[in-house]
Amino acid sequence: MLTEAENNKKKVGEAAVAYVKDGMTVGLGAGSTVNMMVETLAKHLHKENIQIHVVPASIHTERLAKKFGIPLTDFSEVEQLDLMIDGADEVDQQFQLLKGGGGSLVREKIIASAAQELLIMVDESKLVATLGRFPLPVEILPFGWELTAKKLAELGAKPKIRGGEDKPFVTDNQHYILDCSFGEIPNPQSLHNQLKGLVGVVETGLFVDMVSTVLISSDGEVSTLSKK
Amino acid sequence: MLTEAENNKKKVGEAAVAYVKDGMTVGLGAGSTVNMMVETLAKHLHKENIQIHVVPASIHTERLAKKFGIPLTDFSEVEQLDLMIDGADEVDQQFQLLKGGGGSLVREKIIASAAQELLIMVDESKLVATLGRFPLPVEILPFGWELTAKKLAELGAKPKIRGGEDKPFVTDNQHYILDCSFGEIPNPQSLHNQLKGLVGVVETGLFVDMVSTVLISSDGEVSTLSKK
Repeated sequence: MLTEAENNKKKVGEAAVAYVKDGMTVGLGAGSTVNMMVETLAKHLHKENIQIHVVPASIHTERLAKKFGIPLTDFSEVEQLDLMIDGADEVDQQFQLLKGGGGSLVREKIIASAAQELLIMVDESKLVATLGRFPLPVEILPFGWELTAKKLAELGAKPKIRGGEDKPFVTDNQHYILDCSFGEIPNPQSLHNQLKGLVGVVETGLFVDMVSTVLISSDGEVSTLSKK
Repeated sequence: MLTEAENNKKKVGEAAVAYVKDGMTVGLGAGSTVNMMVETLAKHLHKENIQIHVVPASIHTERLAKKFGIPLTDFSEVEQLDLMIDGADEVDQQFQLLKGGGGSLVREKIIASAAQELLIMVDESKLVATLGRFPLPVEILPFGWELTAKKLAELGAKPKIRGGEDKPFVTDNQHYILDCSFGEIPNPQSLHNQLKGLVGVVETGLFVDMVSTVLISSDGEVSTLSKK
């Protein structure tokens, strides 16, 4: 038996794979909703006799895709993707995202920036009026991270190094993540620019003006919000 | 016998170490001028009976400092440095720098951003009216580097991956470097902001409004330009 949360993830994954068409190159994000969707995608490809290639955003997603026999590719083979499917930690009313709880924000953003369409799958609990309920993940260089944390604190964050000082969590890119409580983020673009401009900051978990479609699951039903 | 270029590097290093006072925490950059200066610094410390700690910007500089018995520290011990001493590939008339030929631009910039004073040592051949004679080094993530190179090309650069596609040069931070010919760079701050804002870009070799003093060697003589 699936829990209610798992059932919602399953349903929104089923809705997402319907966007996948024959011949597409598709980016796959990371996190629990994507993990659940990969098997659904494999079944969809088989049932509809569809050929695609995927670019995975994390080593874990890559392993899952391989396990289910979904062909992989990368940026040495393709310059543009048709579609990117991913989850999010928060979605605001302008479709701006806060992401990175799973630690794959940089690769997710690189892939999303190359995709013609970014499709986001969430549970309705992720919808917020204003971003900032979760601490904002900021990926930083290990070298001098204490200094970078200090700079972020001066901008009003309360940065915490993920995993703790003694054994920081290391991303797939060999970086650290600072989880930064800024409180409400009414202007994500402005905050992103400010943070990304700092020496030592690699990327932020704010995805601004990138999303075209959001699939929202609630009580096993999926609704669609689209900018188009 | 030293060549003329080596003699200039030696002289400018001698002038630089005179700025090092007892009790200071000093950042050391990377590159041939710094390499030559480290031994001079060790002699200066011994002769003047001065105690300092240094934060090295590259693994090579760290090894050299160890070899000459100069005590090391890092950002887990110190939050601020008194002085950073480094070289540069180009210095313009507003003291803006183009750096990164040696491949240590990110760590150099992190250290410089924590230093109260940035002291730059150059040969007079490095002085330019406008930056851009050298291709601008831009440090990028290996993941999706082809896509990042494409974005830089769209901004007018002619990006070349350092070391070549088959075996890219890897920085101390495990990143790649794109050497980007933009032609003349009349507004370094604006170009830096544009590039640093791109997903996949970690840092650029433009050091804007960071330098206080430039030591310039020419025919074995050293002159000083200072903003103070």
